[in-house]
Amino acid sequence: MVIRYLSQRSLEEAVSIITSEFPDPKMSETVPVFESVGRVTAVPVFAPYSVPEVNLAAMDGIAMRSGDTAGASEQHPVIINDFLRLNTGNVVPTEFDSLVLIEDIWEKDGTCIVRKSARPWQNVRPAGEDIRSGELILQAGHTIRAFDTGALGTYGITDPLVRMVRVGLIPTGSELVMPGTRPKPGQVVESNTGMAYAWFAEHGARPKRYPITPDVPEKIREAIIKGISENDMLVVSAGSSAGTRDFTAGVIKELGELLFHGVAIKPGKPVILGKIDNKPIIGLPGYPLAAQAVLRELVAPLLNAWGFPSPEIKTMKVRLAQSLTSDVGFDEFVLLTVGRFEDHYLGSQQSRGAGVQMAPVRANAYVHIPPQLEGIDEGTEVSVVLTGDSSTIDSSLFITGWNDPALGHLANIVKKDGVKLHIANEGNMGGILALRKNVCHAAPMHMLSQDGEYNIPDLITYLPEEELILVTIAEIQQGIVSKDSMNPVTLKDLTEVTFINRQLGADSRTLFDLALKDSGIDPVTIKGYTHEVNSDLAVAEAVKTGTADAGICNYLTSVQYGLEFVPIAKERYELVFRKSMLSNPLMSALVDAISSPIFAEALEARGGYDLTLTGTVRTLP
Amino acid sequence: MVIRYLSQRSLEEAVSIITSEFPDPKMSETVPVFESVGRVTAVPVFAPYSVPEVNLAAMDGIAMRSGDTAGASEQHPVIINDFLRLNTGNVVPTEFDSLVLIEDIWEKDGTCIVRKSARPWQNVRPAGEDIRSGELILQAGHTIRAFDTGALGTYGITDPLVRMVRVGLIPTGSELVMPGTRPKPGQVVESNTGMAYAWFAEHGARPKRYPITPDVPEKIREAIIKGISENDMLVVSAGSSAGTRDFTAGVIKELGELLFHGVAIKPGKPVILGKIDNKPIIGLPGYPLAAQAVLRELVAPLLNAWGFPSPEIKTMKVRLAQSLTSDVGFDEFVLLTVGRFEDHYLGSQQSRGAGVQMAPVRANAYVHIPPQLEGIDEGTEVSVVLTGDSSTIDSSLFITGWNDPALGHLANIVKKDGVKLHIANEGNMGGILALRKNVCHAAPMHMLSQDGEYNIPDLITYLPEEELILVTIAEIQQGIVSKDSMNPVTLKDLTEVTFINRQLGADSRTLFDLALKDSGIDPVTIKGYTHEVNSDLAVAEAVKTGTADAGICNYLTSVQYGLEFVPIAKERYELVFRKSMLSNPLMSALVDAISSPIFAEALEARGGYDLTLTGTVRTLP
Repeated sequence: MVIRYLSQRSLEEAVSIITSEFPDPKMSETVPVFESVGRVTAVPVFAPYSVPEVNLAAMDGIAMRSGDTAGASEQHPVIINDFLRLNTGNVVPTEFDSLVLIEDIWEKDGTCIVRKSARPWQNVRPAGEDIRSGELILQAGHTIRAFDTGALGTYGITDPLVRMVRVGLIPTGSELVMPGTRPKPGQVVESNTGMAYAWFAEHGARPKRYPITPDVPEKIREAIIKGISENDMLVVSAGSSAGTRDFTAGVIKELGELLFHGVAIKPGKPVILGKIDNKPIIGLPGYPLAAQAVLRELVAPLLNAWGFPSPEIKTMKVRLAQSLTSDVGFDEFVLLTVGRFEDHYLGSQQSRGAGVQMAPVRANAYVHIPPQLEGIDEGTEVSVVLTGDSSTIDSSLFITGWNDPALGHLANIVKKDGVKLHIANEGNMGGILALRKNVCHAAPMHMLSQDGEYNIPDLITYLPEEELILVTIAEIQQGIVSKDSMNPVTLKDLTEVTFINRQLGADSRTLFDLALKDSGIDPVTIKGYTHEVNSDLAVAEAVKTGTADAGICNYLTSVQYGLEFVPIAKERYELVFRKSMLSNPLMSALVDAISSPIFAEALEARGGYDLTLTGTVRTLP
Repeated sequence: MVIRYLSQRSLEEAVSIITSEFPDPKMSETVPVFESVGRVTAVPVFAPYSVPEVNLAAMDGIAMRSGDTAGASEQHPVIINDFLRLNTGNVVPTEFDSLVLIEDIWEKDGTCIVRKSARPWQNVRPAGEDIRSGELILQAGHTIRAFDTGALGTYGITDPLVRMVRVGLIPTGSELVMPGTRPKPGQVVESNTGMAYAWFAEHGARPKRYPITPDVPEKIREAIIKGISENDMLVVSAGSSAGTRDFTAGVIKELGELLFHGVAIKPGKPVILGKIDNKPIIGLPGYPLAAQAVLRELVAPLLNAWGFPSPEIKTMKVRLAQSLTSDVGFDEFVLLTVGRFEDHYLGSQQSRGAGVQMAPVRANAYVHIPPQLEGIDEGTEVSVVLTGDSSTIDSSLFITGWNDPALGHLANIVKKDGVKLHIANEGNMGGILALRKNVCHAAPMHMLSQDGEYNIPDLITYLPEEELILVTIAEIQQGIVSKDSMNPVTLKDLTEVTFINRQLGADSRTLFDLALKDSGIDPVTIKGYTHEVNSDLAVAEAVKTGTADAGICNYLTSVQYGLEFVPIAKERYELVFRKSMLSNPLMSALVDAISSPIFAEALEARGGYDLTLTGTVRTLP
């Protein structure tokens, strides 16, 4: 490890290096003007002709010489012989310098009578009023807006020259499979260069994805040589296996110069910057969140320096819902969910696991912890950068606790009422603690006490003083999964098969133990009772692959794995919130959604839920 | 007029009608995920499988059963026989529940020795950690961001279903020509449907432009029938001739229902809304700024209601540099240029001429004047919506006065220093007044006094108390234009040709009269001396078309019209600002740009400038 990050730089140094080492390639291309929105002008754009090129009638009226009307008044009408009737937009011939509105004229025997003298150039739209030939329309470096295109089209600029930069994206890693392929265990879907493609395109660059290159130094070398020759910037996306990046760094050293390997940024530390043929080559970390941080914090400054502005950001002040830890010496970036909470805005931390791609999807902001800080305390006001639609922030509900797919359906239903649910997957206890700290609006939970009762015993323990409302979302079925659809395994069959269990303390384990007790089955008689795994998925996987004949699992996972399911228990899944929230219209919408027929239909279509108690309300104390 | 706007609606009523009359067509399409940025999900997106599907090693280490390590300590090392060496990302088989780091292990003869007990699930990335099968990834109505695409790709969503709406765009008007055709007098470039195309595309709609339809009711009828059948919304862009819209309204009445004709909005009043086959048809005003206001204020709410969000806006508070007038009963929208001015932000009005397409190009904001106001006073703080890059606002210089193309070159040069010039074309006197009111940073001018001196006499008159700096930008040449390159017309030839003059008071007229006086030529001897036009362009047009043989004109216009040019005078074009501005780094950058070789090269390439005095500084008093 010491060798690997010997040349580790601070983020500030790294940005300084990347923005100073590489001259602007100054590539450009023409694009059809009405498809040029968001592109950046490569050169100043000057008007090739004036608009209008001649004087035009600004209104419907009669063109005449203002001199001919001198002295005209109500008492002394003047007869005009030389005039021309014009509609708005018609050319005013050079012999006339004024336009009199029709309602101010009396026409008689082919002449006009005016009773008011006309000012020179009244109601005339002068030549060059809009723009004069040679005048600047757009500076170089202007990001073209939709309404600019109308002007450009009018002025004859049909194909503006805009900045272009070619970015090659090379995915490396023998474990990679293309999106659309369901990954087998040990395989990883190659979506990082796809995400980078979308990100570069959004910046006005022209990205190109190359085929997956396996973790073989010669192959990586070939791909890099080709990629550098065809592009102005090359991004090599590392596979997630440990040795890959060392190949990339080695190949860069061989073909050019390694500028740094490792930057004090989290996530994103194992980033590489090299120079080959005077072009930048970036080794992007394989973890998606690390790749995103590197693009945003290190590659964006280079694109900006080359004249490709990043989409505009919005910032706002929020209070932190949790204390954030940080390593001194590192620039850390933490994804947050920001929402309105009573009289202030609260930022709640998302998972910091670099492999959790749902974190940036769920997040709508991030906070930057500078290198001199060890962290930021809960409750501190910080400035955050918004990554999502800011208009939803005032209509957000923080829903923190056990995340069952049923919440996704509720989120869809209340979205129609303009309510945004921010669902944080923190488990039952995480929800109770968030509720106690008053950093969520509601906690969804199915918290089983030792006596088999749901939610109320633990709420009394942890929130003894609070007036709480519990609305049942649904009861979630747990059961025994097995493979043979002719002979699905039931409780009483368990002594005859190989079983796989959940760990002690898991709800389904507790339910299972209660069911065994009720049925009078001695656990010692079940082969594999002591073989514990930590998730429903692991149970299903073990049964599917034949490691075990049966296990305990929820209905959803059984469907996912195509396993038989015999129900043994139901978990009461309730939404818990303070009584004071009842007056909040966002919460009313959510409670209404729970009782709505559309929600019931959605859960019935899914299966695995009992809706008998859905919408029933319990209160505490 | 009374009949025409009989059904004129308030903007509020119009928005209410358009958003309530038309049900969401609920069209959708799939797009490749990495090209889906900015599109809006049509349906909720659920995870088709869990990620990861099995437990994975979170670090490089040794997988084992935590139970086997019970009681291990420095004093009591435990020997493990059943284990597996794993790299980060490898599958942890179901028989193991823990991963011990390599550095905490002693390997010996095919066994491992541990000196510390392992916790269950330590260093194991559990199945479903990122997302569980069936869990909600994105709600319906979510605008896809670049970093969302990585998650979607990883979860196997390669072609998300996004909202789509087909919008037909029909340009009408016999005077229209396509962009790229230089319009002859009386012709208008059809760029409105192009601009609308760009605007609808930016909103995620699928616009389609139809060919230009002439102002013939049967043709308009045919085009509308075809357009309505092929789209979910139809926009008919009126030609600028007076009768066109009446055809559109008439055809709508015939084919369906006319909901309103005329809305109390400026610009944008003559808008039409109709309903044919239950689909909306919008008659867009022909003036570009009116068309833009209608799209933004009336069509955007319909798109929003159908699930196509508008790009996010930023607002800010600014003080008005000028009083704005407004008609009571009308919602008015005024384009502004916003910049930092000393310790506050100032919004300066752009041209309100509905045909001036440079106004939205120059503007970076607009203000909404509600219908109950007659106007807003100068100096009032108002909230404005930004239409341009907000990052340039703090580095802006307001340059108000005579707009010569030389300013465009200066703007390009200082842009490299991060300085944004906002050039307002207000003429010499407009610049002096803006300087006096302290609503511009500098005024570019060539203000000729009666004694033939430039700028200083008028500055002394209008800004007597101020310490001012005058930096010469260049001297601009004025001359006599004519057609015959063998025999260009000179001053002494004028008595033998037909002349066309500028109006009394125009600088070139004054310079011409001074030149005549110097040469001892009696104006009475010049045929056409009394034939005055109001612009250089009108002079050049008259000479080009043969109305006159010669006229007075600047060099640039002579080049534009391919005319011969004989210089007769030079105008001293200076940038004038308060002495206190010298310490402003933005102003320093601008002054440096005036003296830069690159600026001199640009003006020499253009021609028509004398650079002898460029960069020289005069001061007042």
